[in-house]
Amino acid sequence: MAIDWGSSNVRVALLDAQGGLIDRRASAAGVFTVQEGRFAAALLPLCADWINQYAVPLLACGMIGSRQGIVEVPYVACPASAGDLARQLGMAELPTVEGFATEQVQQLHIVPGLNTGSQETGWDVLRGEETQLFGAMAAADDAARLFVLPGTHSKWMSRSESGHIASFQTYMTGELFELLSRQSSLARVMAPAQWSPEVFQQGVAEARAGALENLLFRVRTAGLMGRFQAHELPDYLSGLLIGAEIKAGLQQFAPPDPTIPIPLLGSAQLTQRYAIAFAQFGQAVVEMPGDAVFTGLLAIAQAAGLLNPATAAN
Amino acid sequence: MAIDWGSSNVRVALLDAQGGLIDRRASAAGVFTVQEGRFAAALLPLCADWINQYAVPLLACGMIGSRQGIVEVPYVACPASAGDLARQLGMAELPTVEGFATEQVQQLHIVPGLNTGSQETGWDVLRGEETQLFGAMAAADDAARLFVLPGTHSKWMSRSESGHIASFQTYMTGELFELLSRQSSLARVMAPAQWSPEVFQQGVAEARAGALENLLFRVRTAGLMGRFQAHELPDYLSGLLIGAEIKAGLQQFAPPDPTIPIPLLGSAQLTQRYAIAFAQFGQAVVEMPGDAVFTGLLAIAQAAGLLNPATAAN
Repeated sequence: MAIDWGSSNVRVALLDAQGGLIDRRASAAGVFTVQEGRFAAALLPLCADWINQYAVPLLACGMIGSRQGIVEVPYVACPASAGDLARQLGMAELPTVEGFATEQVQQLHIVPGLNTGSQETGWDVLRGEETQLFGAMAAADDAARLFVLPGTHSKWMSRSESGHIASFQTYMTGELFELLSRQSSLARVMAPAQWSPEVFQQGVAEARAGALENLLFRVRTAGLMGRFQAHELPDYLSGLLIGAEIKAGLQQFAPPDPTIPIPLLGSAQLTQRYAIAFAQFGQAVVEMPGDAVFTGLLAIAQAAGLLNPATAAN
Repeated sequence: MAIDWGSSNVRVALLDAQGGLIDRRASAAGVFTVQEGRFAAALLPLCADWINQYAVPLLACGMIGSRQGIVEVPYVACPASAGDLARQLGMAELPTVEGFATEQVQQLHIVPGLNTGSQETGWDVLRGEETQLFGAMAAADDAARLFVLPGTHSKWMSRSESGHIASFQTYMTGELFELLSRQSSLARVMAPAQWSPEVFQQGVAEARAGALENLLFRVRTAGLMGRFQAHELPDYLSGLLIGAEIKAGLQQFAPPDPTIPIPLLGSAQLTQRYAIAFAQFGQAVVEMPGDAVFTGLLAIAQAAGLLNPATAAN
């Protein structure tokens, strides 16, 4: 059983040993919404019947392995392979919960997050995206070396020839958009967005040409001076922020051949925006199918030996 | 009478015709705190006695001339001299207010704000800082061509040889600091600041070497990974943001000689931070005395002929 347990949601999938999807369920019982450490009570309503029926091993990834989760699993340092993660799985016990009786205390295996950097130069960290990436690697072209996961905290991740995650960078693009469009002085001049690709592309073009530090205030002045209409300003801000992320990311990771597509993993709406913006930088991209995280959990479970007959018989 | 009427405060000064300060007062009746346009009721408690005693002309600058103010005064385009502003003053009538009777309806003269840019390339705007800058110019060395006003919305302003404000740029540094340190995912790992110059300087150094887009998340990871203590993180964030502003500003304005000091105008605490950061970039600065705004209002009043005897006799 594959569990993607993030900050705000938990998604579970029942897979056969070949990775075939038998069933899937989800709830809003994310790590940050669970009260007083009652993680078993949050998870078992989703899947106690599967546990009783199939006696499957449970493998989870995401914020469930963070300090706010069920147990803090130490980060693994980059470069890291799926085997490296499999060798350093965390472990927690899920107590039985009244009303969702399982036959015994369940062991929850937890994929560690990754870190990169050092005490001197600064760290970057992630939890959950490593598993998505190992799933996406299986589906992506072998030539792909750079992967982008747009989101609240966008991740740019590079893969080595040997299939290790070599390094990664976090960009707070989605969170900055939320903060600036809802709670800043820019919010005062904005109206709810009506998707305007042209305005979004104008923002990307300006971010490409300038520095974000002095571009953000343009959202306010564009409203004051009637350059854009109030309902266009969210897309202008979005274009500035995503354009700045892509500019910085391409400088940082310097993909050698812009015709080799960068796989994008994220919600359809967001990857669509990133695809438009990447095109302005002359960089090819390919939108990956969803559910890479379950494929990744399966790959790590296989590497950890969780799917061999002896384990499955337990 | 000189009035600096910003978003959150109003400060008034009674000046003689030579610019000597007779008295000054202030209140929290900023433009954004005045309800239902009752601007006269907010101002007169501070200064009705001066108006009755001296029959002085009233000249104000700042957000009072914005769309949220008493009357919207159109922006003047850069480059602009004090004379250009004086020729385009706005005008509003302050009705008499019960309890603070003045002998007649008072005329409030209002300094216009400035804009720079165009509909195609984007605009930048300011209100109030133009007056501070004309005041500071009088006190600064003639060789100074670039002035920096740190704040919620920091302004970098360049002066031409002829004494015009040539152009300017806004950086939302202070507002970003407030948003990120109070309402973002970074805030979760922070404790109240204990001023640490070393940590601040580390942030500046990293901003100097990298791109802000991928630096902000380091505040979170520095807390998670124990790189800095929670009470050091606000100064680390402050260093990253101020460092990024200075890096972008020096690239944009490219002062030709780093030994010519850039005058800094702002609160003592904030200009101190900027002075430390500028030193890391090898750029000389000089902290200007406060109250430049009143000197600026006097200069504009003189240019507008508000201080000649015929006007004063009205």
